[in-house]
Amino acid sequence: MAEMKNSIDTSLRERALRVVPGGMWGHLHANRLPEGYPQFFARAEGCRLWDVDGRSYLDFMCSWGPNLLGHHHPEVEAAAERQARLGDCMNGPAEAMVELAELLVDTIGHADWAQFQKNGTDATTTCVTIARAGTGRRKLLAARGAYHGAVPWCSPSVVGVTSEDRAHILYYEFNDAESLSAAAKEAGDDLAGVLVSAYRHDLSRDQELPTAEFALAARAACDAVGAALILDEVRAGFRLALAGSWERLGVRPDLAAWSKAIANGYPLAAVTGREWLRKAASQVFVTGSFWCGAVPMAAGVATLGVMRRGGVVEHLEAMGTKLRNGIDAAAARHGIRLRQSGPVQMPLILFEDDADFAKGTLFCQTALARGVYFHPRHNMFLSAAHGEAEIDEALAAADAALAAVASARQTAA
Amino acid sequence: MAEMKNSIDTSLRERALRVVPGGMWGHLHANRLPEGYPQFFARAEGCRLWDVDGRSYLDFMCSWGPNLLGHHHPEVEAAAERQARLGDCMNGPAEAMVELAELLVDTIGHADWAQFQKNGTDATTTCVTIARAGTGRRKLLAARGAYHGAVPWCSPSVVGVTSEDRAHILYYEFNDAESLSAAAKEAGDDLAGVLVSAYRHDLSRDQELPTAEFALAARAACDAVGAALILDEVRAGFRLALAGSWERLGVRPDLAAWSKAIANGYPLAAVTGREWLRKAASQVFVTGSFWCGAVPMAAGVATLGVMRRGGVVEHLEAMGTKLRNGIDAAAARHGIRLRQSGPVQMPLILFEDDADFAKGTLFCQTALARGVYFHPRHNMFLSAAHGEAEIDEALAAADAALAAVASARQTAA
Repeated sequence: MAEMKNSIDTSLRERALRVVPGGMWGHLHANRLPEGYPQFFARAEGCRLWDVDGRSYLDFMCSWGPNLLGHHHPEVEAAAERQARLGDCMNGPAEAMVELAELLVDTIGHADWAQFQKNGTDATTTCVTIARAGTGRRKLLAARGAYHGAVPWCSPSVVGVTSEDRAHILYYEFNDAESLSAAAKEAGDDLAGVLVSAYRHDLSRDQELPTAEFALAARAACDAVGAALILDEVRAGFRLALAGSWERLGVRPDLAAWSKAIANGYPLAAVTGREWLRKAASQVFVTGSFWCGAVPMAAGVATLGVMRRGGVVEHLEAMGTKLRNGIDAAAARHGIRLRQSGPVQMPLILFEDDADFAKGTLFCQTALARGVYFHPRHNMFLSAAHGEAEIDEALAAADAALAAVASARQTAA
Repeated sequence: MAEMKNSIDTSLRERALRVVPGGMWGHLHANRLPEGYPQFFARAEGCRLWDVDGRSYLDFMCSWGPNLLGHHHPEVEAAAERQARLGDCMNGPAEAMVELAELLVDTIGHADWAQFQKNGTDATTTCVTIARAGTGRRKLLAARGAYHGAVPWCSPSVVGVTSEDRAHILYYEFNDAESLSAAAKEAGDDLAGVLVSAYRHDLSRDQELPTAEFALAARAACDAVGAALILDEVRAGFRLALAGSWERLGVRPDLAAWSKAIANGYPLAAVTGREWLRKAASQVFVTGSFWCGAVPMAAGVATLGVMRRGGVVEHLEAMGTKLRNGIDAAAARHGIRLRQSGPVQMPLILFEDDADFAKGTLFCQTALARGVYFHPRHNMFLSAAHGEAEIDEALAAADAALAAVASARQTAA
């Protein structure tokens, strides 16, 4: 990929390496991506990104979730600018905080109230704290391998983490009602809550929607002892169903954690909850210097306003279906076996016989060279700005990328 | 205070009470302030705020820290708007992230590198995780009563917190070298770090600058076993000394946590560290959906740019001194005994014989009615937008407020 001439990106990486440990940190580190992917970005518009070397990409990561309606969505930007001219970080919230809480309560099936934070991790951590406060118990059930944030109690890494940080966490297998029941039994009458992702979107493995049986078992395990069912909607929230990802299953959580897409890229997170946990939520001490910032609240009000007019989730599904079908058809044409899993609006493409992700890497690198930004191992995201023409453009790149995978297989054989 | 007619504020509080537990949460909850203080704000400019009922305040809380240069500072706003037109939350950082890290490393005495987060709590938690990763040890020393954030390991509340969350934290008394040494001895060769605030700014008690003896003892306790000295600069950072609050003591930390004022109100936090912890910082997994947001980074670059031109800290000191001297003089005139403590640019006014804060409350309410927003128990903050005229205005209100306190004493006597 040396011919791509990432000269400014390379020089920024060199500068960064001097002043940032490892040159970057966390999930946006380009070392988690195939070679050739840019680390630094110059511009974003709709569903397109420009890197610092001026190359443009049709983007399928959507900032790893936050970009729901398209970068610089006019209604969201107008609301944010209007609020910014008035004030953002003040001695207390603006009216937008109340409006956003009202909208969430009115929109989300289980929500009797809402509280706001900045990070998805703030929201999941707050849910756990509220569940413990509301039940007076300690044990938390979480799915093995699920991502719920990047602090010691839930980080995917144990570097710098002590065993006490996870002392009261018991693990079950997603979509395995029996393992959940066994963990609940082990927690016994010390069970404070069951934490579960809206659907299984663990890195590097097929995505799985929850079965009705599993969702009902999670609900029943909580109801049996008065524990809180905590739904982690940080990643999936607002893309699957506006009222909540488990509404279609007829299972409502007691608490839910939201972030990423909630304000179309403005930094915001939220916890929603049911009446019985309102008092506990008012008793825990959770706060942050910027949590009442009015600009993200105004952006959230505008984002939810657009979503509530309807059609966005349907559009994401239609475009996701077109992408999935198109890639399946192209894969068949090229004789490539691959698996697409999870909700179509949050695509994941994994190749058969690809334990080292060599096929996925070649697929993504070839698409990237044609201006389409896919991810080989992490679920991707669609935005409202992805239309028919963009999906056709992506499918053309995917076709070429699958041809490259097929050709590499020929060469290897 | 009923005559103040907070009618819109009251109606917003009623709406909030239905959809937000307790109507509000955290440190910005108006129930932590005397009656009459507004909960909701409509507008901010320089060092002034307008509440939703149209009343304006000369503000001495500065959004509890973030407002360092004044709301809508033209250079900061121009930089933020320029970046916002390009892109904010993208698939990776913008060049501004590197620029800001370079500026921090160039500005802050101990800093060999920087990493970014959103909340002050993110920064302190990241410091602790890096210290544990870098030392392979677990114990952390913290000052009893110090505020380092609002998650279970450090929250001022234990509601929803388990004892394991604080299993490895040992407490010492601020400015008490002996108690620190005793705690370090107890931690023994499991000591990962010593966490200490830039100065003592615990709620409801006199502020204390660290003594050189104490700072040196903290440094020595770390050096003796190779632990990390972690300075919490979240509240004091950029107001006392640009290169770091302990530079004047000749004591450099290994890690420091920054937030609040770093981007003049835009949501951002940072950790800075020394070379020996660079590898550990690259190994821990810490991340957030909005941590690479380019607009707050650009605002941070502009804020640091203004600060590095010099004069702001000196201005804050001059205005803080004028305020402190003026209040002392007014108190003497009215025969009121009060204590002003800590750095002049972060004022705290406590009254003698005021265990129930009745005097402080009356003082603040009277000033508020005259359009000056003080706090009776928490340290306050000055901004670069507070000039001579504003301090004179504040002193006029303070004079009337002290007269009210004197008059109430007469009545009681």
